[in-house]
Amino acid sequence: MHYKNSIKLHEERRGKWEMGSKVSLESQEDLSLAYTPGVAGVCTEIEHDSNRAYSLSMKGNTVAIISDGTAVLGLGNIGPQAALPVMEGKAILFKRFADVDGVPIVIDSKSTQHLIETIRAISPGFGGINLEDIAAPACFEVEEALQDIGIPVFHDDQHGTAIVLLAALINAARVTGKSIADMRVVINGAGAAGTAIARLLRCIGHDKGMCTPVAELLICDTKGIISSSRTDLNDEKKKLLSWTNSANISGSLADALFGADVFIGVSKANLLNRDHILSMAPKPIIFAMANPVPEIMPDIAKEAGAAVVGTGRSDFPNQVNNCLAFPGIFRGALDARAKTISDSMKLAAAFALADYLSADELSVDRVLPSALDRGVASVVARAVYDQAKKES
Amino acid sequence: MHYKNSIKLHEERRGKWEMGSKVSLESQEDLSLAYTPGVAGVCTEIEHDSNRAYSLSMKGNTVAIISDGTAVLGLGNIGPQAALPVMEGKAILFKRFADVDGVPIVIDSKSTQHLIETIRAISPGFGGINLEDIAAPACFEVEEALQDIGIPVFHDDQHGTAIVLLAALINAARVTGKSIADMRVVINGAGAAGTAIARLLRCIGHDKGMCTPVAELLICDTKGIISSSRTDLNDEKKKLLSWTNSANISGSLADALFGADVFIGVSKANLLNRDHILSMAPKPIIFAMANPVPEIMPDIAKEAGAAVVGTGRSDFPNQVNNCLAFPGIFRGALDARAKTISDSMKLAAAFALADYLSADELSVDRVLPSALDRGVASVVARAVYDQAKKES
Repeated sequence: MHYKNSIKLHEERRGKWEMGSKVSLESQEDLSLAYTPGVAGVCTEIEHDSNRAYSLSMKGNTVAIISDGTAVLGLGNIGPQAALPVMEGKAILFKRFADVDGVPIVIDSKSTQHLIETIRAISPGFGGINLEDIAAPACFEVEEALQDIGIPVFHDDQHGTAIVLLAALINAARVTGKSIADMRVVINGAGAAGTAIARLLRCIGHDKGMCTPVAELLICDTKGIISSSRTDLNDEKKKLLSWTNSANISGSLADALFGADVFIGVSKANLLNRDHILSMAPKPIIFAMANPVPEIMPDIAKEAGAAVVGTGRSDFPNQVNNCLAFPGIFRGALDARAKTISDSMKLAAAFALADYLSADELSVDRVLPSALDRGVASVVARAVYDQAKKES
Repeated sequence: MHYKNSIKLHEERRGKWEMGSKVSLESQEDLSLAYTPGVAGVCTEIEHDSNRAYSLSMKGNTVAIISDGTAVLGLGNIGPQAALPVMEGKAILFKRFADVDGVPIVIDSKSTQHLIETIRAISPGFGGINLEDIAAPACFEVEEALQDIGIPVFHDDQHGTAIVLLAALINAARVTGKSIADMRVVINGAGAAGTAIARLLRCIGHDKGMCTPVAELLICDTKGIISSSRTDLNDEKKKLLSWTNSANISGSLADALFGADVFIGVSKANLLNRDHILSMAPKPIIFAMANPVPEIMPDIAKEAGAAVVGTGRSDFPNQVNNCLAFPGIFRGALDARAKTISDSMKLAAAFALADYLSADELSVDRVLPSALDRGVASVVARAVYDQAKKES
């Protein structure tokens, strides 16, 4: 149903994205100022001081939204052209929530190195780069390789999800009376989002001088708990193992869940059942973010005793939606002319998002604001801006 | 004066370009249709039939405006970031005159090959590519290498100038009673624009089954007439020699001009004087397009007997301005879903532009419409569209 109406909407308009002009072009004088000969003076100004590009050109307000189409939504590797409607959607969200100008760019990439070099080459005109829908593990390599280009490079499938999830977890702790430091947490899914969530959880600990942020953090993939008994771990997973699973538990997802306080799923539909929830610690917190069908339906989880249930869906309470993070994060980073988006900036965004809801507004069915709430982005932006300025 | 006001204009607005959204995002339903989950259906549709990208995504109405910043206006190699304001200006002209959505992209290029590969990699999201301000001879190589990518790649500094100049020449012939086939033509400047003008003149001949389109075509560079006595010619100039200068005349620009009907300057300020004009055939036609100061000022040329004088400037009659061509050309090419912009499409644009002015409107001071005339682009677009459809 949504598909048919969505195709109709896109067809009527030939897509969702268009460009706009901030100047009028009615007279010869307009043309002389916006284009030749006047524009030559603007070019020369930037040639002599590249910082001036932020105030004299589109660079200061523009983020490239870049994908190679290798991991689009739940559709997989559909190629760059078919990924375009998602990048357009992202751009209009950027504009709607944070007045950031997004430029959708899809890349026909030959290799991870080629993707890196292409993004590097086209970066001078942008104030930031939002990577999107790039498959793991290439997404890690691309993001890391581009941290030196002088503008923030941020893979939203990793960090956007992680930031919103962390905000939700902070508020879930508040409404259940649990302490994050005492939690036993299970993340199911060790791809882009799962890895980023684990890393951001770790950052809270670092921020507080702790070795681990939570009492226990277990990460599972399709083969079970990531532990030293596994012989099939790639480099990324070995890195995760080096600071998770301190008791070196091995086994299945069910083994991991036994006595856990928190389940964070970025995996597949219907992996959990009532018995899984019953095996967890009292008042468990469930974030079942598989799309469109979550790891467990909220009513089943609730009936089995879950205190807080969040999903990726708008038709259930507690929607973990990246829209709550990325517009404000880039708004803050652009305004601060940040060169990267640091872990502390991500944490600042998560805490600002969590604190957006007052104690009165918080409840087990409301640990996050609505994805459409127009006030969120500016609060997140301010927190990111302040942190960026502290670090610069 | 223009510089100061232009810098002020750009600073007040942080550049000229922004993005716009064709959909509203007020409700959860809006979000579901424009973004997830609905957008997945749109992606799948394009995955299964890539032609659908033209009607379902921004591709069908979008042109990337790409430069490496190596030959920007008269400023030279100022680098990609400093070229950005020109690309933004181009984008707003595209929108204003032809409702084409332009995406400014500046590339930090390591080599001609790198530039080619970068453009190829980012091409899937665009319906066309307008190359801009890329130095010769790289501009020729880049454009040629990209003719196979399935969307039109058009270097405007070459062909935009050539098309508008040809239209102006057609009308100059009409108002002076000269025949193009009988003309002796001198082009001064063998870079991007000069070469493209020569090639397009040649195409008229080919179109009519003639070997040469004009009685004589001489091309000069800073060392004089391109002739077989020259030992310093690069490959591009050797190619030009193979079908110009049939009498193999050697010598200076002054030698070339002796008895010529037409001077086409894409070179430097103040190269011509009164005596040059006096040495030409009766009622000579002068296009002195060096910017901002032409090869000869119109009043001097007129006093010495020039029948028609055109320049690149808006404050003199007969402004040869690319704005008259590129918006309509891409509008027509996009609407036809053309894969290239052929020589015949360029000629069709030139003749449509020339015919835009009726016999009553034509005069020695009006061989072209105003650059701000809103009716031009659709007439050019129609001619380009019709020719593209004939060829497809």
